[in-house]
Amino acid sequence: MKFNSIRYVLSRILLAEAALMMIPLCVTLIYHEKSALAFIIPIAALALLGLLGGLKAPRDPEIYARDGLAIVSLSWFLMSMFGALPLVISGMIPNYIDALFETVSGFTTSGTTIMPEIEKFFLGGFKGVLFWRSFTHWIGGMGVLVFVMAILPMSGNRNMHIMRAEVPGPEVGKLVSKISNTAKILYGIYLALTVIEAVLLWAGGMPLYEALIHSFGTAGTGGFSVWDASIGHYALVGHPHALYFEMVISAFMLLFGVNFNLFYFMLLRQFKAAFKNEELKLYFGIVALATGAIAVNILHTVNNFGEALRQSVFQVSSIITTTGYGTVDLNTWPSFSQVVVIFLMFLGAMAGSTGGGFKLYRILILCKSAKNELKRLIHPNAVIPLKIDGKTVEEKTVHGTYVYFVIYSCVLIVSVLLIGIDPVSGDFTTAFSSTLSCLNNIGPIIGGQSNFAGFSIASKILFTFDMLLGRLEIFPILILFSPSMWMNKKSKVKKIKPPKAA
Amino acid sequence: MKFNSIRYVLSRILLAEAALMMIPLCVTLIYHEKSALAFIIPIAALALLGLLGGLKAPRDPEIYARDGLAIVSLSWFLMSMFGALPLVISGMIPNYIDALFETVSGFTTSGTTIMPEIEKFFLGGFKGVLFWRSFTHWIGGMGVLVFVMAILPMSGNRNMHIMRAEVPGPEVGKLVSKISNTAKILYGIYLALTVIEAVLLWAGGMPLYEALIHSFGTAGTGGFSVWDASIGHYALVGHPHALYFEMVISAFMLLFGVNFNLFYFMLLRQFKAAFKNEELKLYFGIVALATGAIAVNILHTVNNFGEALRQSVFQVSSIITTTGYGTVDLNTWPSFSQVVVIFLMFLGAMAGSTGGGFKLYRILILCKSAKNELKRLIHPNAVIPLKIDGKTVEEKTVHGTYVYFVIYSCVLIVSVLLIGIDPVSGDFTTAFSSTLSCLNNIGPIIGGQSNFAGFSIASKILFTFDMLLGRLEIFPILILFSPSMWMNKKSKVKKIKPPKAA
Repeated sequence: MKFNSIRYVLSRILLAEAALMMIPLCVTLIYHEKSALAFIIPIAALALLGLLGGLKAPRDPEIYARDGLAIVSLSWFLMSMFGALPLVISGMIPNYIDALFETVSGFTTSGTTIMPEIEKFFLGGFKGVLFWRSFTHWIGGMGVLVFVMAILPMSGNRNMHIMRAEVPGPEVGKLVSKISNTAKILYGIYLALTVIEAVLLWAGGMPLYEALIHSFGTAGTGGFSVWDASIGHYALVGHPHALYFEMVISAFMLLFGVNFNLFYFMLLRQFKAAFKNEELKLYFGIVALATGAIAVNILHTVNNFGEALRQSVFQVSSIITTTGYGTVDLNTWPSFSQVVVIFLMFLGAMAGSTGGGFKLYRILILCKSAKNELKRLIHPNAVIPLKIDGKTVEEKTVHGTYVYFVIYSCVLIVSVLLIGIDPVSGDFTTAFSSTLSCLNNIGPIIGGQSNFAGFSIASKILFTFDMLLGRLEIFPILILFSPSMWMNKKSKVKKIKPPKAA
Repeated sequence: MKFNSIRYVLSRILLAEAALMMIPLCVTLIYHEKSALAFIIPIAALALLGLLGGLKAPRDPEIYARDGLAIVSLSWFLMSMFGALPLVISGMIPNYIDALFETVSGFTTSGTTIMPEIEKFFLGGFKGVLFWRSFTHWIGGMGVLVFVMAILPMSGNRNMHIMRAEVPGPEVGKLVSKISNTAKILYGIYLALTVIEAVLLWAGGMPLYEALIHSFGTAGTGGFSVWDASIGHYALVGHPHALYFEMVISAFMLLFGVNFNLFYFMLLRQFKAAFKNEELKLYFGIVALATGAIAVNILHTVNNFGEALRQSVFQVSSIITTTGYGTVDLNTWPSFSQVVVIFLMFLGAMAGSTGGGFKLYRILILCKSAKNELKRLIHPNAVIPLKIDGKTVEEKTVHGTYVYFVIYSCVLIVSVLLIGIDPVSGDFTTAFSSTLSCLNNIGPIIGGQSNFAGFSIASKILFTFDMLLGRLEIFPILILFSPSMWMNKKSKVKKIKPPKAA
């Protein structure tokens, strides 16, 4: 392990977090709220630690793949631990474990909450803290390390290892030859889309603060709101533009579930390459199919096809992108629709988007590979390459996807078993859907519990862990707990050469 | 496709089924029941078709792997379709789809039933038909094709392809050089264990008929009983040896979940090889762990550790071996125990046993492989062989296990989605556990339904299909529906040479 390199990069991360925390501090000051100290103390602590740790640059900037994995998982742990402080100090969530759960839920863009009543804080002088809570979605969506790479170029091969570990999906493509430029392009698209959404919501009559909060929640596919009824609030209070808000948010949830590389292709006017993408077709195919099936299934509960479609579109966009905003209580839906929702929860959005879940690209690989295996059963000696978008997928990637599926399933099964010990989980559906909700960074639960407040401390810690496992796609976290990770068995390890710029 | 070979073997199967049906016919005659015709008609039909189809032997006895798969899946379809006739003709289950469900449940050793009340038939003159219902468990447990191989030796490589397709588990080992001798040894052990169990039950005071029924159900890890309360009946009516019956059946359920090769090793006095087996250790480890956890969890409901242990031992043995006998209603258990049961339902017993499920050998391969992958993440260039029982598992077998897991999961997810359409499924837990119960050939359901009688015709057909998919481990059934299976693309196919006898 390159401990010096790890220390150095982690210090940068702490400084970045201190800088990002300035923004909610400003919000606090603008609204003349009392919780400024809740930000000033953590900012001071972060800045101090960050400066001290970054004093001495490591002599050898090269790192191994495992160092990249360690950097990413440790950053996320540290960021969450400091990020929880404003929630505790302000008094909004006095219990640190609860606050940590909420912060991890924010950074991992899960949107699961332990706060049964959020409105009273929103209306009672906690706008700054709630801004931070939603801002963590925006930071976590694209990844804070990608952000650091975009603004602080690092030497050597560090960037590639870190980016590979933090950006979701089985394959990380470099858009341009320099990783730091790729990171800049991605963050540029991310920022632009977020601003457009906020402006659209604001133009429709949503107060600027709420427009920002909901844009952060959409952009990171997170799902934190400031209303107890989530986006359903606007229809509930009879806001004249409630339908418009729902349509805008639906559309942007779906957009943020798209692989960001495709937006880049569109910026370069390569529309053909973008629209021919097989994963994109699968994504919109599933959205259309699920929306239709649910609309038909819930028709008898609302007696109006327009209303059924409105509910169905919003919920499907929200669940498949793992955002978690809602306009209805999923528990009131008939069983078939609930089963479809649990299925969508599992799938997740496109690889390379801000969405969580298993990712459709992996589903595509697994299904195509399974189909090939069946063919091979009939024609044992046939060689059938696995192609996506006309390109052959490497055997290594296919194998990695299988391994990921197995490890993912193990984590899911063990978590459901452990959550089952908590009597609050009540039944299998609740235990299963709450675990899936955390592991896939979604938010809502189907079953007996409407939020995570009632679970035991042990369950909350496990859920927190699941959210991190889900967001970082398991490996970076798991290997932190592997003893051989921390031993310097040089004999077995080879240095990886930095990829050459094309 | 070698249609002549397929026709020839299928004819043999029909003749074998006709012969096997003679046994319940005798039972009918012994009890002076009216349902003799219910057997005579199908026996006549089977014998006629079997004789006609077997008139002309194929010139070339060699077959391809895909022919073996087709033979196995077609035999199981045919056997079930004819096997359902006695249930319909006798009037016990007038609806053919229901009777087919029940017969497939029998042959696949699932033990799921559409009969909410079985006792009234047992006490009302249907002992012959109920004998056939349970006897299908015994036939299906070891596989009817293995039986045919044991008594009718076939030339060429046919046997290996057929055995590979019918015997559960990722690897089929030949115990002795000749496949037909292996089949004889396996059937010998199977028969001996069944007889010992029946004698033990009979000696304890269980009527011979019931002792046979329950031994068939245990041997095939099926689960059909003649009592509405399953094995719980004896305690319910206060039978003095109820505990003894439960202990005998528990022990034999666990025995029939063991890989039969290990019994052969023990017969050869190779006790070390048998007891060092890693899968065996995992099997009894899981049984011990689950039994302990459930006993502690249900303690407060029975207020007596002995009773808690008694309930726990029986249910755990029944579920992990996918037998499905019960002494309590699983729905009365606390949620944690239910989650453990659903987990056990998924695992299944050892490969090469009569049990269903995913099989522990596969779990072993997946877990060891996942562990190796994590090591490889830290030491990218390390070569770590996957070893079980000291022997390296071939890369091909590991890959095949991954593929099986993915296809198995796809089948499970699609089935749960389709069952969800049926309003009877009620909630996710019921839809999930009933599908798992069929796919893994278990029997009981956790959730709103206590048996399968209430489901729609479409759901019953799907469940029937799932049971066959589960028993034959998916591939033989799936490729029947593959168009390229039926085209003779000679260019792509190579003949497989018969394995040389060692």
